[in-house]
Amino acid sequence: MTDMKTGAPALEQDSWQIAGKTFTSRFILGSGKYSNELVEAAVRCAGAQIVTVAVRRAGATGAGGILEAIPAGVTVLPNTSGSTTAEEAVRTAALARELGCGDLVKLEVIPDPKYLMPDNAETVRACASLVERGFTVLPYVYPDLNTARELEAAGAAAIMPLGSPIGSNRGLLTREFIRIIIDEINLPVIVDAGLGRPSEACEAMEMGATACMVNTGVATAGDVARMAWAFGRAIEAGRQARLAGPGRVLDRASASSPITGVITNQAR
Amino acid sequence: MTDMKTGAPALEQDSWQIAGKTFTSRFILGSGKYSNELVEAAVRCAGAQIVTVAVRRAGATGAGGILEAIPAGVTVLPNTSGSTTAEEAVRTAALARELGCGDLVKLEVIPDPKYLMPDNAETVRACASLVERGFTVLPYVYPDLNTARELEAAGAAAIMPLGSPIGSNRGLLTREFIRIIIDEINLPVIVDAGLGRPSEACEAMEMGATACMVNTGVATAGDVARMAWAFGRAIEAGRQARLAGPGRVLDRASASSPITGVITNQAR
Amino acid sequence: MTDMKTGAPALEQDSWQIAGKTFTSRFILGSGKYSNELVEAAVRCAGAQIVTVAVRRAGATGAGGILEAIPAGVTVLPNTSGSTTAEEAVRTAALARELGCGDLVKLEVIPDPKYLMPDNAETVRACASLVERGFTVLPYVYPDLNTARELEAAGAAAIMPLGSPIGSNRGLLTREFIRIIIDEINLPVIVDAGLGRPSEACEAMEMGATACMVNTGVATAGDVARMAWAFGRAIEAGRQARLAGPGRVLDRASASSPITGVITNQAR
Amino acid sequence: MTDMKTGAPALEQDSWQIAGKTFTSRFILGSGKYSNELVEAAVRCAGAQIVTVAVRRAGATGAGGILEAIPAGVTVLPNTSGSTTAEEAVRTAALARELGCGDLVKLEVIPDPKYLMPDNAETVRACASLVERGFTVLPYVYPDLNTARELEAAGAAAIMPLGSPIGSNRGLLTREFIRIIIDEINLPVIVDAGLGRPSEACEAMEMGATACMVNTGVATAGDVARMAWAFGRAIEAGRQARLAGPGRVLDRASASSPITGVITNQAR
Repeated sequence: MTDMKTGAPALEQDSWQIAGKTFTSRFILGSGKYSNELVEAAVRCAGAQIVTVAVRRAGATGAGGILEAIPAGVTVLPNTSGSTTAEEAVRTAALARELGCGDLVKLEVIPDPKYLMPDNAETVRACASLVERGFTVLPYVYPDLNTARELEAAGAAAIMPLGSPIGSNRGLLTREFIRIIIDEINLPVIVDAGLGRPSEACEAMEMGATACMVNTGVATAGDVARMAWAFGRAIEAGRQARLAGPGRVLDRASASSPITGVITNQAR
Repeated sequence: MTDMKTGAPALEQDSWQIAGKTFTSRFILGSGKYSNELVEAAVRCAGAQIVTVAVRRAGATGAGGILEAIPAGVTVLPNTSGSTTAEEAVRTAALARELGCGDLVKLEVIPDPKYLMPDNAETVRACASLVERGFTVLPYVYPDLNTARELEAAGAAAIMPLGSPIGSNRGLLTREFIRIIIDEINLPVIVDAGLGRPSEACEAMEMGATACMVNTGVATAGDVARMAWAFGRAIEAGRQARLAGPGRVLDRASASSPITGVITNQAR
Repeated sequence: MTDMKTGAPALEQDSWQIAGKTFTSRFILGSGKYSNELVEAAVRCAGAQIVTVAVRRAGATGAGGILEAIPAGVTVLPNTSGSTTAEEAVRTAALARELGCGDLVKLEVIPDPKYLMPDNAETVRACASLVERGFTVLPYVYPDLNTARELEAAGAAAIMPLGSPIGSNRGLLTREFIRIIIDEINLPVIVDAGLGRPSEACEAMEMGATACMVNTGVATAGDVARMAWAFGRAIEAGRQARLAGPGRVLDRASASSPITGVITNQAR
Repeated sequence: MTDMKTGAPALEQDSWQIAGKTFTSRFILGSGKYSNELVEAAVRCAGAQIVTVAVRRAGATGAGGILEAIPAGVTVLPNTSGSTTAEEAVRTAALARELGCGDLVKLEVIPDPKYLMPDNAETVRACASLVERGFTVLPYVYPDLNTARELEAAGAAAIMPLGSPIGSNRGLLTREFIRIIIDEINLPVIVDAGLGRPSEACEAMEMGATACMVNTGVATAGDVARMAWAFGRAIEAGRQARLAGPGRVLDRASASSPITGVITNQAR
């Protein structure tokens, strides 16, 4: 599958689907916390094919232009951030559809104002309701296996577990519980929230995540576009490492074989 | 420095030097533990510009062909693996020069047969001796700040600290002590040994390493060439993240700003 | 509060309450996976004042004698292990009361046969139902802040978050999320499940847990009674460290002051 | 070996020796950074049988009274802190002997003013010299296996590896390399420097350390005497856990056996 001539794996053959669309990029970029100009640069540098945007009733927190900042051909994934109950989330998703964003929605239900932890139970309720209304739902959750099972049963299109509290850049604090979900749930797992360094996104992909979503990790970097590029490459690297199959881990050391990789005064 | 049109940082402008040569790749590949055919594929996929090879007196462990497996234009970095004392290492380096490998040498002095821990004191002695003989020396050490200072004083061209016991694929167990060396020593720091996953090499680069060397992490993967590619991209990602300047880490969560990245029913 | 003469803090003054009872020990011992004789020795060595026991309908998994193995004066805490739904857990708690175990119950609802992860949503439902029936409920949960809030609202007497999958001896994998619950919830937090080493229980107490529960960590040790003793002392140590207030953590080193702790040739 | 009646292991039978003396406490307390009154309280609460004190030429940093603060029967362990070369350390040890402190010495050679990392090579030289002069030498080192082997060969009485930079309270950052030394070296291993929490000292003991030394972790606590007590108990707990033999660690969960620890409606 690797093109030995150019030294590049045939990345375009490693795709994934959601809502009938096929994506070769596994990096979903958030668009909060930075200017629309930077969003555009970041999307290009990231090679992102999906960008999330918040949806709110106008008047509340007036804004605009974000859709114009997203390059053509990139899928807009509206999210329900700001919703504190299932009902609010369902209303926000309906608004997104009304605004022309289609049926795809990233479901966020977050009542907790301090740690911004998603409410898993409300998220399950909202997911069921949105699936019934014909939405393709990507729920953002705290990585709890039983919640993931309920979301799968409710018809979710993917699971989006958090790595650490949103916006914290603290990395994969939930790694063992994301691993369990990847192991047990037959849906794409997209790690979202808390990934602050490309190495952390790379590790999530090595663990078998289908994709990663990053917002704050990019938005708070010194050079936003460059960091977007770095996350994009790290996610590709982690994906290919997963496909390659990582080597065994030993408790002790293991010297290089004496048979290969050696030059001698006879060999020349 | 980022080309916003193509979405790629100008990587070729981010180079480093050793022994008067300039390199744009920051991935040094080892050639032990796998076949010469795979080495060739791995070098291409990795985009490596430096490959290490072991040097031994012929007869001892006859082998050959490794130099033919290394693509033209790639710098061969002979190492002194198998040396258990400073004297042996110096003799092995002399042999490498005699065999036409030039003055560049990766210095390894490893008396410990079980954990294969390098002998820092012997390495300092050998380094001083080799520098006197006109070698450009890259010493492999256990990451000890005082040893690094002595190597700097002895004229080493770089410091190559181990991440974990060689061949173990256990990752960056010494991260805090490598960080100190990066902080304090005015030489390129090339993390070597123990990096088993691309995410670990990526983290080393984010910490400020100049380059990473990997052998076992690639050689023991299921698909060697693909894993070489993955390490190569992860190292580039980590380097660019370092240059971008990573965002702050918070103890708590931080919601997306309500001002950007929002669409409303008025905005359309 | 410390008795400087004997060198012992006045431990008996540091007590906690549940269900109107006061406890000075903060170590709750499980009684599964080992013989009744060992349970008795472990309880004594641990200094435990509360021991959990499983409750089941006879015939299903015949057993007995466990209550005789628990020394007089020790509080028996029946648990609902084996329950996969809220209804089963409520029935099991009712059986425990019927069998004379009183109103105290450790609530476990675990549908997942592989990782044995508790079902938080069912646990909240069962908790509300049991509180209505007059039980004092200690729910075992995956540490999710929103679940903890719901349990607090439902009248739970404590929160018992898991450190890692039950029986795994993997330690405090959920530390950051337990920390959030300790920070936010106004109930005793008793860390349960996964604590395999005394150091891990000690850390949980340093973080501010009210108590720790251990079963497998003791039951699978080579010397069960000795390990029970070790956990008991580590939990006391962690509690006292919390009360003492741990010192600051520095990025760098800090030498001892030259003013104290020094002897000189003049001082004598 | 455990007294099942009182529930206490026979701790006094678990002793270790150094310089012909037998100790039942495995907690060595430092006396820097806090007042002599607190040192006395801390020693009592810790149950420490060995206390380190710095030795300096009078006039340089005048001080005194520390020896009076140490309770009778406690072994004073002079250290050579402040020494930046082997020669200085040897002179300081000689001064300590001259001042009546005997032949026991904790050897510290620290040239690095920022991270205070010990100089392993100088420490080996000083150790050999002090052993020749009849000292019983406990060298403080960065945990490097080859250094430990050299110290063993030079006649050291123990190895004292650092857990993290001295005074940092950062814990067991070197755990894997201390583990290797415990595994390979036939001398008592006393973990020193960086232990900021009792849980960290407990873990060091679980790993097989012979003893732990703590100074800053106690001296910077809010309640110094109480923290000394907590470290003392945690070290005992870790030691007993090591002797007990910790249970296996599983990747997955493991339910309690249905055979034990169960009460049923038939059993009563």
